[in-house]
Amino acid sequence: MTIIDRLRDILGDAHVLTGAEDTAAFGKEWTGHYHWTPLAVARPGSTAEVAEVLKLANETGTPVVPVGGNTGLNGGTFAEGALMLSLARLNRVREFNSEARTVTAEAGVILQTLRELAAEHDLMFPLTFGAQGSAMVGGFLSTNAGGSNVVRYGVTRALCLGVEAVLVDGRVLNLLTGLHKDNTGYDLRDLLIGSEGTLAVITAAVFRLAPAATGHATALLGMRDLPGALRLLHKVQAGTGGAVEAFEFMPRTYMERLAHYRPDLACPFPPEPVNIMLEIATTIPGDDPGARLEALLGEALEAGEVTEAILATSEAQRRKLWEMREAAAEITFTEPLLVDTDVALPLDRLDEYLATMHRRLAEIDPGARELVIAHLGDGNIHYTAYPTDEALSAPIRAAIAEEAVKLGGTFSAEHGVGISKRPTMAAHKDPVALAVMKTIKAALDPKGILNPGKVLP
Amino acid sequence: MTIIDRLRDILGDAHVLTGAEDTAAFGKEWTGHYHWTPLAVARPGSTAEVAEVLKLANETGTPVVPVGGNTGLNGGTFAEGALMLSLARLNRVREFNSEARTVTAEAGVILQTLRELAAEHDLMFPLTFGAQGSAMVGGFLSTNAGGSNVVRYGVTRALCLGVEAVLVDGRVLNLLTGLHKDNTGYDLRDLLIGSEGTLAVITAAVFRLAPAATGHATALLGMRDLPGALRLLHKVQAGTGGAVEAFEFMPRTYMERLAHYRPDLACPFPPEPVNIMLEIATTIPGDDPGARLEALLGEALEAGEVTEAILATSEAQRRKLWEMREAAAEITFTEPLLVDTDVALPLDRLDEYLATMHRRLAEIDPGARELVIAHLGDGNIHYTAYPTDEALSAPIRAAIAEEAVKLGGTFSAEHGVGISKRPTMAAHKDPVALAVMKTIKAALDPKGILNPGKVLP
Repeated sequence: MTIIDRLRDILGDAHVLTGAEDTAAFGKEWTGHYHWTPLAVARPGSTAEVAEVLKLANETGTPVVPVGGNTGLNGGTFAEGALMLSLARLNRVREFNSEARTVTAEAGVILQTLRELAAEHDLMFPLTFGAQGSAMVGGFLSTNAGGSNVVRYGVTRALCLGVEAVLVDGRVLNLLTGLHKDNTGYDLRDLLIGSEGTLAVITAAVFRLAPAATGHATALLGMRDLPGALRLLHKVQAGTGGAVEAFEFMPRTYMERLAHYRPDLACPFPPEPVNIMLEIATTIPGDDPGARLEALLGEALEAGEVTEAILATSEAQRRKLWEMREAAAEITFTEPLLVDTDVALPLDRLDEYLATMHRRLAEIDPGARELVIAHLGDGNIHYTAYPTDEALSAPIRAAIAEEAVKLGGTFSAEHGVGISKRPTMAAHKDPVALAVMKTIKAALDPKGILNPGKVLP
Repeated sequence: MTIIDRLRDILGDAHVLTGAEDTAAFGKEWTGHYHWTPLAVARPGSTAEVAEVLKLANETGTPVVPVGGNTGLNGGTFAEGALMLSLARLNRVREFNSEARTVTAEAGVILQTLRELAAEHDLMFPLTFGAQGSAMVGGFLSTNAGGSNVVRYGVTRALCLGVEAVLVDGRVLNLLTGLHKDNTGYDLRDLLIGSEGTLAVITAAVFRLAPAATGHATALLGMRDLPGALRLLHKVQAGTGGAVEAFEFMPRTYMERLAHYRPDLACPFPPEPVNIMLEIATTIPGDDPGARLEALLGEALEAGEVTEAILATSEAQRRKLWEMREAAAEITFTEPLLVDTDVALPLDRLDEYLATMHRRLAEIDPGARELVIAHLGDGNIHYTAYPTDEALSAPIRAAIAEEAVKLGGTFSAEHGVGISKRPTMAAHKDPVALAVMKTIKAALDPKGILNPGKVLP
């Protein structure tokens, strides 16, 4: 019996896809940077079936690549000749507990679905990013996804209270508790979160929920410089009791590119060197966050730290300000030759980093253009360069990482490592850390069949 | 050369303590439950010295027990015949960054020192618990300590951005970054946090800081039942934008014991079945949290959900309300025969748990008394039983854990596992999780010399 036959025995014929046509949708990343031909796609419908598939793969030494919504950017689901394990059918919300404010969802539940479900109960699942209409629980846990409101709610790891996962030999690891304090041995939950399917396959998770906002205030600000923007962030944090949900930095170059590709979203004032999309939220009945924000901005305007300020006065205006930010992917991936990255810096080093990169890029490729968009509230910069020659991509990519690490930053903030950042891992990650990671990988996946060729150099 | 001689070569004579007299202070836990005679106490003054000591211990197969402020409760520093590694001399604050709002502190820095340093910069290091005047960075990281304001700021893990640690063979693991987003391979930081010195020795860490509060409102409330208290918690969270810093549950039995042992701290009203010490904080200049809290409580009083309410009107009154809560250890450890525990439940199951335990305790030992104090905001209950016969301690301890686990809870919330909870780990922790932990332990500490006999059954 072939492995395909044995998979069909486990899952039924309908849930084992083979052949170029049936597996076509699983053979590429949406950016178009990675293409592959999988051996087959297995679509288990339960944790028990995931366990049986992994056991079979481990026995036969078949590489397995887990896949959720396939919205990644770094080749994390590249699966040439591998068995792809789609978690899409594990799409049950197992429990919604509005009193304890937790939700238990399987790996195939779509982020947007979770967000809508929480909203129906006057609660919020905070995680939000561009691909939320497709991204699934298993995927955003595997990369420890971030997004636009990390400044208030933290990354995925901060939202996850417990996981269920299947080890490579089919054993089920049950850490599915919805507790805020739980110290019972080593933190295997956080070891699996962010490991991109290389240590085990997460099948379900418990998340914490937050109270839903009763109102927002959203503004677009022009400012002179980043140190001033950081001071404003701290001031608005203190002045609102930590209610800042987004503090997004769009430099003039971003606004210019936006005006070119999306004139409908052009900056309503002549862009300043620093433009900030700021949102605060309130959960307080009767509170007026707009008035509060206006008061806070008034002082900054008088002091000349803020030179332009537009406050959204309707939900439509608020949506438009968000669209300016959310158009980032659309206006970034416009040409075939680009170097897109995902660095993070200590909050006080962004300015220095961007000045350094501006200089470095000109040195490497005087004709290259750059595009910057940043979650300033959490130090995460998406720095994109458009080289004039493909041969310059590698040195540019290396410089982007090198300068971040020099300033105490990271070359991989929220998109995961996948394939594309493996050379950077080799160059910049602490070698002792890499050695420990390899030890753990070898201990948990001795045959190396779980998402091979990802994360570790 | 003996190992003692070699240690003296590395550290100098003054920093290697031997003999009953010199090591006496290191030979017991403060509760008096554990006593031991260490081989010696090594007091390295730098990460490099920690590395040399560990390398020597690993080569010679000498067990090593790291120790900080020695404020633990579960025998985590029990070190019969072992080399104790005191981190107290690693007491430098390496960097305080008020712009990025991070602090980098070595393992021997005392929690209270960190809190005071942050306060000098108008910032706050949130972690707070009874032993903060002695507890050190390395210790509270090793147990992933909790405390009274986890409801707002999370446990130690949520406050730590990066660590530096020494592996058993002396290699230094440098993960000392102050980043809010960093996904560069497996989360070794969180693997070490909470591992109680059994995988590596943490020598320094970067922590995030929060804005300092400009004002507090603190109240003591009498309420009928726990479901009502949970509703009030959610209401105050929404009504203050998440400003609840403490929501501590002191049942009538606690108040009665408090009145007996500390009449100066007796409850100012006839205790209700549920008494809550509630504190909210504000960072908003000019904000009046007292007025806000009064308004929120007014509705609950009218609705009869809150039957008694006392609002602190001075800092002295506020301190007194906190002392009622902080006297917990003092009024708990009053007699030699007791079973003190540290469970946590999903927020909506505390009521059911306490009712079940009340019945179970009476079944096992009809004459036993119980004492309950709980961080209601995070589900953490310190349930203490006073058996009439030592032989009943074990079945009582077993029941406390068993009933917590049955309701989706944990038998170890914030005090760590140490020695005392190892049998409970064996009985209740997911066996697959235990197997994975043992695999990781064997991979990182092949000779098993790091804090042997702790955490894992």
